[in-house]
Amino acid sequence: MYRLYDYLPSGNSYKPRLLLSLLGIEYERIDVDIMKKETRTPAFLVKNPNGRIPALELENGEYLWESNAILCFLASHGTPYMPTDSLAAAQVMQWMFFEQYSHEPFIAVARFILMHTDPSDPRRAELETKMDGGYAALDVMEQHLAGRDYFVGESMSIADIALYAYTHVADEGGFDLAAYPGVRAWLRRIADRPGHILITDA
Amino acid sequence: MYRLYDYLPSGNSYKPRLLLSLLGIEYERIDVDIMKKETRTPAFLVKNPNGRIPALELENGEYLWESNAILCFLASHGTPYMPTDSLAAAQVMQWMFFEQYSHEPFIAVARFILMHTDPSDPRRAELETKMDGGYAALDVMEQHLAGRDYFVGESMSIADIALYAYTHVADEGGFDLAAYPGVRAWLRRIADRPGHILITDA
Repeated sequence: MYRLYDYLPSGNSYKPRLLLSLLGIEYERIDVDIMKKETRTPAFLVKNPNGRIPALELENGEYLWESNAILCFLASHGTPYMPTDSLAAAQVMQWMFFEQYSHEPFIAVARFILMHTDPSDPRRAELETKMDGGYAALDVMEQHLAGRDYFVGESMSIADIALYAYTHVADEGGFDLAAYPGVRAWLRRIADRPGHILITDA
Repeated sequence: MYRLYDYLPSGNSYKPRLLLSLLGIEYERIDVDIMKKETRTPAFLVKNPNGRIPALELENGEYLWESNAILCFLASHGTPYMPTDSLAAAQVMQWMFFEQYSHEPFIAVARFILMHTDPSDPRRAELETKMDGGYAALDVMEQHLAGRDYFVGESMSIADIALYAYTHVADEGGFDLAAYPGVRAWLRRIADRPGHILITDA
């Protein structure tokens, strides 16, 4: 059975948790509190030398880390969430790299700052830049979703799961999705999927 | 024939250029000057709505962007640079996501700041944080390369190409690799590969 090293509020951690639920795969969930620096202990660094959750422990005892790489692995065994066509598969990767480079560092980090610092914290000064970058990412998503139900092809893939993780809680980072009707319709489509769980669901 | 929208000094752009050379694939190279904001013109945003190089134009007129997604696509057609085993393939993805999240934003951005700003520029204040993050990434790489020739398995993959792109010019970002003998040996291994080209090679 897989073992997932997880932190419930983390969108990155939620990605494999959501996919495992959609696929109906049982697994053991281990809570790792990043606020107590439990990802920086010698015991955890053996699992992920980069000191981050999520990490997936396989049945053979090996570890896989990076949320989107875990999605690739879990989706790769003949599931509907990874296209078999090589161009479509590369487009899934394109949107997952977009998520980690142009989306998460703004929307997830703004949410982290708002959730974990008080208004006098110096990190609040970063928020203006985070807002600009986050809205730029949402603009790209809104434009792409015009006339499309999902990011790649005609059905939901791990690209949608990766982008859903922090977009659906963007309000907690101070983002207003009112001007993004395509994004909001897409969020509802993912939320309505049988097997969907909430980010707070253990 | 592929058409690559490229900017010679960019490590991200160098990744597909290096892989195309290793694979002996001919392509047309189009220079796009990011310093003149040529990636933000309406004509370029049709190719990549996220306004970045590299972008690959396929023979059918479609575009693929995100450097590491382009590597996935080019490597996916039975080349030795992408493992067929699903765990090894996911480990390649793991290191490529590590590169874009924990390596490039520090090492590549430090290099960009040093190359494109003068010493009085306010962006120089970012360098201290960039140094810390960059050395943390190099520490993870050095530890992983102990007793290994390449990042995944026994042979060179696109994970190595992705990490090579900015590591081999880390000195231009102010990083000293003297304390990283494993990384330096690995850099030489990649540079000695038949078909290797320099970042400055058009």
